[in-house]
Amino acid sequence: MSISIPLHIPARTIMTPGPVEVDPRVRHAMSHTILGQFDPAFTDLMNQTMGLLREVLQTKNHWAFPVDGTSRAGIEAMLCSLIEEDDKVLIPCFGRFGYLLKEIAERCGADVSTIECEWGKVFEPDTIMDELKKIKPKLIVMVHGDTSTGRMQPLKEIGQYCRQNDILLVVDAVATVGGTDVKTDDWFIDGLITGTQKCLSVPSGMAPLTYNNRIEKIILERKSIEQGLISDPSQVNKKKRIRSNYFDLSQLQDYWSPARLNHHTEATSMLYGLYEGLRLIVEEGLENRFKRHQLNEKALVAGIKAMGLSLFGDPQYKLPTVTCINIPEEVNGDQVRSQLLEEFGIEIASSFGPLSGKIWRIGTMGYSCQKRNILFTLSALEAILIQEGVRIYRGEALQAALSVYKKDQESESLKKNIT
Amino acid sequence: MSISIPLHIPARTIMTPGPVEVDPRVRHAMSHTILGQFDPAFTDLMNQTMGLLREVLQTKNHWAFPVDGTSRAGIEAMLCSLIEEDDKVLIPCFGRFGYLLKEIAERCGADVSTIECEWGKVFEPDTIMDELKKIKPKLIVMVHGDTSTGRMQPLKEIGQYCRQNDILLVVDAVATVGGTDVKTDDWFIDGLITGTQKCLSVPSGMAPLTYNNRIEKIILERKSIEQGLISDPSQVNKKKRIRSNYFDLSQLQDYWSPARLNHHTEATSMLYGLYEGLRLIVEEGLENRFKRHQLNEKALVAGIKAMGLSLFGDPQYKLPTVTCINIPEEVNGDQVRSQLLEEFGIEIASSFGPLSGKIWRIGTMGYSCQKRNILFTLSALEAILIQEGVRIYRGEALQAALSVYKKDQESESLKKNIT
Repeated sequence: MSISIPLHIPARTIMTPGPVEVDPRVRHAMSHTILGQFDPAFTDLMNQTMGLLREVLQTKNHWAFPVDGTSRAGIEAMLCSLIEEDDKVLIPCFGRFGYLLKEIAERCGADVSTIECEWGKVFEPDTIMDELKKIKPKLIVMVHGDTSTGRMQPLKEIGQYCRQNDILLVVDAVATVGGTDVKTDDWFIDGLITGTQKCLSVPSGMAPLTYNNRIEKIILERKSIEQGLISDPSQVNKKKRIRSNYFDLSQLQDYWSPARLNHHTEATSMLYGLYEGLRLIVEEGLENRFKRHQLNEKALVAGIKAMGLSLFGDPQYKLPTVTCINIPEEVNGDQVRSQLLEEFGIEIASSFGPLSGKIWRIGTMGYSCQKRNILFTLSALEAILIQEGVRIYRGEALQAALSVYKKDQESESLKKNIT
Repeated sequence: MSISIPLHIPARTIMTPGPVEVDPRVRHAMSHTILGQFDPAFTDLMNQTMGLLREVLQTKNHWAFPVDGTSRAGIEAMLCSLIEEDDKVLIPCFGRFGYLLKEIAERCGADVSTIECEWGKVFEPDTIMDELKKIKPKLIVMVHGDTSTGRMQPLKEIGQYCRQNDILLVVDAVATVGGTDVKTDDWFIDGLITGTQKCLSVPSGMAPLTYNNRIEKIILERKSIEQGLISDPSQVNKKKRIRSNYFDLSQLQDYWSPARLNHHTEATSMLYGLYEGLRLIVEEGLENRFKRHQLNEKALVAGIKAMGLSLFGDPQYKLPTVTCINIPEEVNGDQVRSQLLEEFGIEIASSFGPLSGKIWRIGTMGYSCQKRNILFTLSALEAILIQEGVRIYRGEALQAALSVYKKDQESESLKKNIT
């Protein structure tokens, strides 16, 4: 028998685009005792979680619940429940996560068309609408905020066009929900998926999603229940059945309804965590929360620039929850990251594909997105860059960041005095 | 904005076949702060978890890791990674969970054959081997312990036959691992899946699995990496690619290897919980743990019989971790269950399909499987049955159970004196 090592979790400041730090209240929630999945105390909690999700996802949709799996589990659940063999799907890619959508949709059997733009930019709505006219897909799937490039795609015009032309719009809002405005209903989004480990600031492992009647209609046509749960095997809908049992939204919505279909066993402690995380968001208020994210982003960006570093990508479409920094040529980006972790216990991220080794990515998400983390990260980055021999402006970063916070405080107290 | 209700989890004694109670050490582990997924402190923990899993799954397989999802997520990951369109698969069904395997395999595109036996019985190995000879499938998928009927299928002979005849044996051991002996390697099991929320006694949400080289070979032939992560798009293996991205074991094993392929974001807190749960098992020792499960099962069964109730199913193949009780005709089974929950905070289970309303199922799994829970459950069940007007032998159940514990103590102390 092996000797196992007691669990030891070193303290970290996590400034990546996820997973990020979670509020102690969420961690405490997760340490509660177990409830059975059909215990009324637990099904009440499920119902309350659906209500909180609707608020956070800014939707009146009835269906709003988590899939038990990480973010891409939610994406796959949505896509495989919608896509039938050879369905036409358009996927505009402006970073890695567009290609992930493509990959998932293809594996679901879709006939996928993509359009691409340079990493660091987003699409003009017209470009997408022209493509929609040409291809006439059943659905278009888009990333809202792509963390790989730190860009955010405006969606409302696209949503409006899709609604008018009977195309479904499915959005991967994993990196944005809870950190910046995502208006599911106002932007005409039919299906939307997010993840727990980013701006919701709950541990990784759940993918909340929502969808409207247009999507539900398709799902219901494909509904099929396992033979072991029914008395009449002819109810098995072999023809249009969704390709996955685990990701079958027609069964999942029955599990999340008063029918309480026995599907999987809901991840008890994760649901406690999600519930508490959503409560924290509703208590803070969406507007306040977005403002907090903006303020800390502003301070971080001011500090980075004051140091003499430059930002990657089109500033007009910057994702507010991720800041991409061009790695100075004279330094090894990964060496800097590992020094930050070893010396300061701070984690920042690298990127993927064409941007691998070219940029650092600093996340400002959820509980990680707070003044002390920004100041600590700037001071640590400055120290490591100096240590590595990079020529930067010394001592300027913290001054710039502090001045952002001071100005904000002043304008807030001014507002208070006026009202 | 809605007013959200603070999380309140009532105390429960959970005597269902899962989810079950978890050790306070596991709950505490889950309340730790977050680590980044590629933080060396976290990847160390991943590696140690693999080591512990190998011990608990009694295997020398290199691959032993959890899928982030509930038990059926692990089953689907195994099946969809193995099954290609029209592959022949044999599934012997002796309860609901055989039909679940059928359903998952069919959705993966398999040409599924089933054989069935009466619920409450298991198969003679010869029956299965005859069918294997006839059908010559690529794989046979079997439930080890089916909680719906409380039966356990012997596997070794079947495993031996499969190995000799180049058939793959995949086993759903969700209800047995950690509660009764499951010898992955000695029984010639090629792929095995379990779940966290039963005898491992960790919250629901992860599905540990293991597989050997025979399975890995198939998976590697189907390997394909997302376009956003590679520079050469011709590496995308469209032809044999696995139908799911999330459940693609070829990518998952790269994530769990030094390659650390960026696939999903591992469910941080769930992994803490799994690690601590596995440590508890290794500390207790598999043999001791199985003995504890047997003893408590024996006491429960003695108590149930002493009350005058009868057990469902073939006693020779009883699943040691689930006890099925015939519901007396004069009482409504669900009414008894809800009274147990309301008055005593005790949860027991009903069953599915043909057994719905016919039997109660009491789980003796993991941390829930302890003397005080057995005694409390027996006393509560007796009280509710009396209240509901069922004629039973009063006061006998606890005497019978206590006497089982007493005899065990005596024989244990006798053994001590001898050695």
